[in-house]
This record gives sequence, structure tokens and C-alpha cells, in this order.
Amino acid sequence: MHSKTRDLFIPDSGRKVIQLVLDGLGGLPDPETGRTELETANIPNLDRLASRSSLGRSLPIAPGVTPGSGPAHLALWGYEPYEIEFGRGVLEALGSDFDMQPGDLAARANFATIDADNIVHDRRAGRPPDEENVRLCQKLREGLEGKLPGVELFLLNGKEHRFTVLFRGGELGACLNDNDPQREGLELLPVVAGDTASERSAELVATFLSAAREILADEEVATGMLLRGFSGLPDLISFNDLYRASSAAIAAYPMYRGVARLVGMKVLGSPHGIEEEVQALEENYGEHDFFFLHYKPTDSAGHSGLFDEKVSALEAFDAILPRIEALEPAALILTGDHSTPCIHLEHSWHPVPTLISSKLALNKADAVFSERDCLGGDLGNFKASEMVTLAMAHASRMKKFGA
Amino acid sequence: MHSKTRDLFIPDSGRKVIQLVLDGLGGLPDPETGRTELETANIPNLDRLASRSSLGRSLPIAPGVTPGSGPAHLALWGYEPYEIEFGRGVLEALGSDFDMQPGDLAARANFATIDADNIVHDRRAGRPPDEENVRLCQKLREGLEGKLPGVELFLLNGKEHRFTVLFRGGELGACLNDNDPQREGLELLPVVAGDTASERSAELVATFLSAAREILADEEVATGMLLRGFSGLPDLISFNDLYRASSAAIAAYPMYRGVARLVGMKVLGSPHGIEEEVQALEENYGEHDFFFLHYKPTDSAGHSGLFDEKVSALEAFDAILPRIEALEPAALILTGDHSTPCIHLEHSWHPVPTLISSKLALNKADAVFSERDCLGGDLGNFKASEMVTLAMAHASRMKKFGA
Repeated sequence: MHSKTRDLFIPDSGRKVIQLVLDGLGGLPDPETGRTELETANIPNLDRLASRSSLGRSLPIAPGVTPGSGPAHLALWGYEPYEIEFGRGVLEALGSDFDMQPGDLAARANFATIDADNIVHDRRAGRPPDEENVRLCQKLREGLEGKLPGVELFLLNGKEHRFTVLFRGGELGACLNDNDPQREGLELLPVVAGDTASERSAELVATFLSAAREILADEEVATGMLLRGFSGLPDLISFNDLYRASSAAIAAYPMYRGVARLVGMKVLGSPHGIEEEVQALEENYGEHDFFFLHYKPTDSAGHSGLFDEKVSALEAFDAILPRIEALEPAALILTGDHSTPCIHLEHSWHPVPTLISSKLALNKADAVFSERDCLGGDLGNFKASEMVTLAMAHASRMKKFGA
Repeated sequence: MHSKTRDLFIPDSGRKVIQLVLDGLGGLPDPETGRTELETANIPNLDRLASRSSLGRSLPIAPGVTPGSGPAHLALWGYEPYEIEFGRGVLEALGSDFDMQPGDLAARANFATIDADNIVHDRRAGRPPDEENVRLCQKLREGLEGKLPGVELFLLNGKEHRFTVLFRGGELGACLNDNDPQREGLELLPVVAGDTASERSAELVATFLSAAREILADEEVATGMLLRGFSGLPDLISFNDLYRASSAAIAAYPMYRGVARLVGMKVLGSPHGIEEEVQALEENYGEHDFFFLHYKPTDSAGHSGLFDEKVSALEAFDAILPRIEALEPAALILTGDHSTPCIHLEHSWHPVPTLISSKLALNKADAVFSERDCLGGDLGNFKASEMVTLAMAHASRMKKFGA
């Protein structure tokens, strides 16, 4: 966002904005009927809302580029995903619903079979069952107690051989190489600091790895670990500072709560399903002035290629929409993070149908909510990173530029 | 193209892309009928294809900017024409169908009348007939044999007094001034190197010019030459490296083969007319996975201002289109390098109607192929330099960005 645009936002807790993100919203025509999922679904509430809204299509990253969920959500909140670097370690932590803090150091870890000469024999320790993962992490936690002075250690369980290691204690630089030699039969690599800010981290990781090897010495298979993708939280301006807002995130899936935490949104619980999500919105409506609410079933159906299921997911959302409208926000966004057309089974690059409802919308009275009706709408094809700014404008939460 | 987009292309020789470029495709309404050339033509195959495709309009360079053919084609392949510098010498070589190589040095040349004191008396040597041009170039070739050790010399005939000089032999810097004093009655300028990489070139040019003067000494009119626009090939990433593709170019006109060579496309012969072009496409279809096919008659008719002739050129292309469709590429682009409206007699800045056909297109079933139907299409108004990326997305030849 241009710095001069940033100066224009006005704090106004009375003029609330709600951003409803239907994951994987956009679709493509069914080859038999020629109609998309949205065009097939019976969604009277969405259609009525569309006929009163500014319509357009949101371009997640760049023309032709299909986004993953993380970059797609960052774009939805005004960030430029291509300019943000963050390692796998952070993504794993966010996906585990872990509240990572600035200065924390995260790495993706594998249990591995490593011999006394540091030769890696099995990079996945025979793919242990998840219960083994739980037992091994707990054994490490207990054994490491008191071994890393001044540092808090977090081990997050994953599937099979995978887990995540996090260190907390001051500013821990993340410019560290993997210790994974990438091939079996080769020797572990020493973890070396690539800058002075990471020297303390390198010492800490060496101490941690050495202590862990002692603790795992009596194991038959998982005798050590590989660490990859060291990373800290990217240094992003918070959503609240960017828009002078008080924001909150409501999502049933940990990954989306994680990305919301990355931009400093307050995460409201861990609701199960859309009913509990809307309840959380209603209950916390007085406390914040920007709400992100995430709806997953549309994307899941798209990935499965189940056209009827995606249609049903849209209809289920449509049924609950009036409760959200009843809150009467100054602006209501309904969009997706990307398209997941059923005929494609995957995310796609297609711009995402989007509406912004407000008293200041330039509507088309005969429009319904569909990819094709959004095509000709007031918002045109616009960058996802401009969406919240457009909604803030629709909510009268921006000054004019210049006299 | 953003470097992060560049990382997303997947090599896949089985998912082919064909880019059909109808030169000067876009038009404007005939003042009498109110219909453009495309809207007037009877083009049932193009219309049917359009109704199943993603439609949009391609912006060649920037709003309001009319491109020449060279920059327009570079944009069609993803390059930013404003960021590429190349001299007239290169353009002449490319237009002569000459296979210029990296390190080669090219200059535009004029035969001129120059006296023993190096005073230029006629900058065009009395505009000799083309046969004289042929004789003089041949005389120079023979006379210069063995005079430029370690260097290969090429002289490309032009019209009247014009020809092109090319030197090949290692890395020849092109930072050299013209020897043309620009006005008659003035003295020839010495050719001086502007950087160290061009010092050897300056010596070479001096030796060449001195030897040529001796050979031309017995001529009555063409006693010397002027050299202008020294240039080497611009340092472009090749199309194949950019998109991880194996590309081939099919064009009846040398200029377009030349621009395709500039980006490293394999040029497939020198077909005469669209019939032979399509035959070349069919015969080489197994050997490459990206094909550029150029069709000239639409532009020629536009320049002549012959509305009916442009309509006929469109109808002739329409008639052969099914043979191209029968190859069943994963994505088929149909576009132009720029507009050449008959009422304008020249290239124009108007965005060019474009379709991308693929199973993943978001079509409009009632669309025909026209400037005005492309307006409301899925692709919107997009930059020409994004076109191949969009087609690669439509052909499922891109990874997603981020997790």
C-alpha cells in the first residue's frame, strides 16, 4: 500500500467492517450445464446482497498466479505476498495454532536415525506412528527441562516423523542453515550463523541438538533429528496499525487463525463450524471494528471435485448470511482467498467474485452473485491487496487526499 | 515479470500452447455501418471459439501508446519493451532474416559519396538502384576477403543505398559512435570506443572502413560508406528459460522471424502464406511445446485502409482455424500485436481483442469474437506482457505460490 494511502484511514469503532472469506469461492462452469457452482446454487440472500453491492473480482497475487492459502490471506488484508519472506518453520507453527511472537525462532523438524559418527541413516526414522511422535516429543520436553537457560522451548507434535521446534527468549536471529544433509549416508551439517544477529541462535541450537541426542541415545530408531527452514516471524506492520482498526479473526481451522495472528489480529476462540463462528461474531461484535470470518467448506468441496457439495456449502452459507447482515456493519465484504473450481480440483489463478455492500455501493439492480455478474461490476478486476482499503472507503473510514 | 512468478513455470511438453498473432487485429467501427472489421466479417469458427474462451483485451505497451511491430511482439512474449534497448543495426539484421548471435556487432550502412579528404558530398550516393547495391556489396565482400583476420564479415543487401554490416568474432562491444556527420559538406567522424569492451570493435571498424575505401576508390559515386546505430543483441533471457518451454516460431515475413530469434525461439523455415504456415505447425507439432504463428494480411489491409480487404483477411484466417484447433493444444491464444484500424491507416494504441481457449476458461456462452465482446471478458484489460503467463496458467503449466 502506498504510504500516502496509509495516512488516510480514520479510526472509527462505530463504523464496523466485516470481511467474509469463503475459501476457494470462485468456480468454473460445469461442462454439462455451462453454469458455475455459484450459478447453480440457490442462494437468494447472496443474490439479493449482490444486487445492492459494488461488485468486482479480486486478483489474489498476479495474473495467472495461483496462490497458496497463506499468501492469499495476506493479500486479502493488504500485504504484498511476493514481498514477504517466511520460512516453513513459521508456517508450521501458524498451522499448529501456536501463538508465535516476534523474536521467536522456529524450525521444521524430523525425527531421524543418526549414528554416533553423525551419519544419517534414515531421514524419517522409519516413519513412526503419531503416538510415537507424541511419546518422543514428551520425552524430549522432560529431558531438556533446565538445559537451555534463559530460553523457553516449544515442541509441536506433527504427523509421523514431523514436528516443529520453537525457541523463545529475546531476539533470536534466524539466519541459520539446515543441519539436514538432504541425503542418507551423509554426515549431519553443523548449524552456522549467517549473520551476527543469529550467533546466539546457533549456539542455542547446538546446545539443544547435543542435549537431545543424549536423551534419544537409548532409542532404537529415532536417535536424532533434522532441522530445516529456520525462520522468525516476518516483520510486518500489524493490520491494526495499517488501517487504524481493532481487528478480530474468527476461523474454525488453525491455519487461518495462524495467518491472522501473523498480522496481529485478535483471534476469537476456536469455533467448530459456521454456526459457532457466527455466534463468536455476534458475541464479540461490540469489542472490535474489523472482523475476518473464514468459511472452509467451499474450498474442501472444490478440492474433492464434488460440484454438488460445493453448491451445498454455498447454500449453507447463504442460509446463515441474514444473521451477519442483521449486525448492520458499515461495510460488508464477501469474497474468497482464491478460486477452487470443482472441475480443477485445486486452487486456481482465476480472479475471485467479490462484493462490498454499503450505503455507498454503486450497484447493478439486476445482478446476482456469480463470477460472470461480478465481471462487469463497479470494482472491476482489482488487486486483492486493495480490498480492505476499498471496504474502508465504503465504510466512510478514510479522509480525502489533499484539499 | 516478477522473479517469483518466474519460479512457478513447470516444463510439460505434453501440454502445448499455441499463440496465433493476427497482425494489426484490432479495428474501429466503419463510420457508415458502426461495425468494426471483426464485427463485419463472417467468422463462424472464431465466434464459436470465442464463446468457449476466456476473453479480454491486451494492452501492448502502456495506455495510449502505439507500438511498432518489434516492441509489440516482445510484449506478447512477456518482455517489457520500454526496458529493452536495441539499435537500428540489430533491427535491420533481424528484418533481413539474419541469424544474429550474441557478441555480433551490427550497424546500418549507407553507400555515400566521400572525397579523398573525407568530406561527405552525398549521404546516399545518388540513391543507386538495387542492382547497384547488390554489385557494390559483392565487390566489397570479394575485396575484403582475408583483410579482417579472426572476424567473419556479413554484408546484407538493402534497398537503394542501404545495407547492413555485421561483424562476428568473439565479444564485440557496441559502444561506438556513428561515423556519419549527418550533414553533407562535413568531414567523416572517426569511430571511437565509448568503453573498454568496444576498443577491439573500434579498431576493427577502422580497418574495415579503410580497406573498403580502397576497394571503392575506383567507383564514381559510391566511394565510401556511412555507419550508424552500432549495436549488439540485447541481453534478454530466452523465452525458453523464462517459461521453461521449447518454443518455435512460424512466420511468413522475415521481420517476425527475426524478433522471434531475438528471444531464442527456434524458427521453422520460411513459409509462404498461411497455408504453408499451418502446414509447418502441423509437421513440427511433436517437436516443441510452445508455438508462435504470425499472420500478416490483417495488418497490411489496415495500413492500406481497405476495410473489405481486412474483412476478407479475417475470413481467410477463420477458414483455416479448424486445422489448428484440431491439434488440441492445452491452451490456444488468438490475439494481435496491436490494432491497425482501417479508418486510421496505421498502428494504434487500442487494446487488442484476445481469447485464450482451454478447459479452464471462464467463458460467456453468447460472446462472439469482437473488440466489444472482449471488453467484458474474464481477462479484462490486461498487459500484453502477461499473456503467455495467463496462457500457461490455462494450460496447467504453473505451480501455486506458497502453501
